[in-house]
Amino acid sequence: MYGAIEAGGTKFVCSIGNDKLEIIKQLTIPTVSPEETMPQVVGFFKEFEKQLKAIAIGSFGPIDVTEDSETYGYITNTPKLKWRNYNFLGYLENHFPNVKTAWTTDVNASAYGEYSVREGINNLVYFTVGTGIGGGGVKNDEFIQGITHPEMGHVSVKKHIDDHFEGICPSHGECLEGLACGPAIEKRLGMSSKDVLATDPYWDIQAYYIAQSAYNATLFLSPEVIVYGGGVMKVEGLLDKVRDQFKKINNDYISLSPLEQYIVEPKLEDTSATIGCFAMAQALMK
Amino acid sequence: MYGAIEAGGTKFVCSIGNDKLEIIKQLTIPTVSPEETMPQVVGFFKEFEKQLKAIAIGSFGPIDVTEDSETYGYITNTPKLKWRNYNFLGYLENHFPNVKTAWTTDVNASAYGEYSVREGINNLVYFTVGTGIGGGGVKNDEFIQGITHPEMGHVSVKKHIDDHFEGICPSHGECLEGLACGPAIEKRLGMSSKDVLATDPYWDIQAYYIAQSAYNATLFLSPEVIVYGGGVMKVEGLLDKVRDQFKKINNDYISLSPLEQYIVEPKLEDTSATIGCFAMAQALMK
Repeated sequence: MYGAIEAGGTKFVCSIGNDKLEIIKQLTIPTVSPEETMPQVVGFFKEFEKQLKAIAIGSFGPIDVTEDSETYGYITNTPKLKWRNYNFLGYLENHFPNVKTAWTTDVNASAYGEYSVREGINNLVYFTVGTGIGGGGVKNDEFIQGITHPEMGHVSVKKHIDDHFEGICPSHGECLEGLACGPAIEKRLGMSSKDVLATDPYWDIQAYYIAQSAYNATLFLSPEVIVYGGGVMKVEGLLDKVRDQFKKINNDYISLSPLEQYIVEPKLEDTSATIGCFAMAQALMK
Repeated sequence: MYGAIEAGGTKFVCSIGNDKLEIIKQLTIPTVSPEETMPQVVGFFKEFEKQLKAIAIGSFGPIDVTEDSETYGYITNTPKLKWRNYNFLGYLENHFPNVKTAWTTDVNASAYGEYSVREGINNLVYFTVGTGIGGGGVKNDEFIQGITHPEMGHVSVKKHIDDHFEGICPSHGECLEGLACGPAIEKRLGMSSKDVLATDPYWDIQAYYIAQSAYNATLFLSPEVIVYGGGVMKVEGLLDKVRDQFKKINNDYISLSPLEQYIVEPKLEDTSATIGCFAMAQALMK
């Protein structure tokens, strides 16, 4: 059996999976503080300790993913003060000394999940567009990363000519996340992004920003497929608008497979990160 | 001995190097057509055929770098019509059947050159800002690439509020290259970028665009160092302005080494690509 911890900014989803990467048992708990949240995590997995081969964690960030770093396995300078400089992996390893562990960002875990269910794909980028925007990538079974994990959600994008919203990213203002995450849409339009009709002209603006993120990912990483998950991307027709805008931006410059196969929705919907953690845990055993 | 071919859009620089990666002999020829240019390339290297172990090529692009592709080694859909779909590597291998070959983009070759002279650096991005803008990267001795080589020079950047220039990229208009390459500066200011005084306020606009390219590279690739080469970057003080703008954009979001060590000039100046080719050729022999 494998353990998965999808450690998000608002909730933790802890899951037990089998060799077929099916979810056998699951617990969702709110993200409060390490002192309150983590004992519940440990409690959930303790029941399965003897059968557990490995646990993988996909955590909100920023996190330290440099294996030879002293703070490897920590959540680092997150705005959630209670979790800042928290040794997440260390705590878990203390409680499960005989269980192997894997550690990455939440969005990397989702990327790995989508990668693991796509036969023949060796190079995938995944973006989530929800409360925040994040991006991760997998190439030849490894995460795309350098001195730290990517932060693709904060990429520069050109402002849409009809958009007069100022952007809400506390660090960058009008970066991709600042302009196009769920709370930015809500602040701009005065209603939750879920309540904005699919016919609202705003979605053309949103598509323009998302298409730029796909284009910049293409220019830097040249993946085989780009997957867009997260609540905001579920709006009917949005992904088609993104493809239309992408086509305009690319203007035949880069030869790509048909955009319906290049810019795609998740196969795993809301379980990308959990299945990705199972797959990471399974990969540890090879 | 090693051979290097820096195949640029205006000139080819062919070089012979020794084991210390020193340039022993060099020939510069104009980039005219395969029929005129390539026999001169072959003629230059024929003299050294017996001593040559390997030749590496850094070519203008786009090129096919996918090893199992039928058109691997070709220049593909370049705007230079005479070179479109030209089997560069095949021509060379026909004339030098006993010499090993390595094949990449011109900017990747420069990236490899700068990488090869930086002890302890495992992850480097290189941009050249000149007639065009290109970017390449090396990580753990391998080029950063996916289904094709990166095209970082065409990344989306926000327009500077004081810049009313429309951009000259034939594909994208106002991408990084369209706004900030040498010919864009010349068209905007009515004089060659070489003649624009270092005190001209335009350089703040240029720095804003270059800083965004550095920031986007950071967000996608998280390199240890970003090198800026090319004629335009030689303007006195420009790199400092880039660092200042980068600092503002980052706003302490990502923890980085001091920017003087992160955003840097080339160590090899104008020989990055040639030395990079020698290093690639040498790596083939390991």
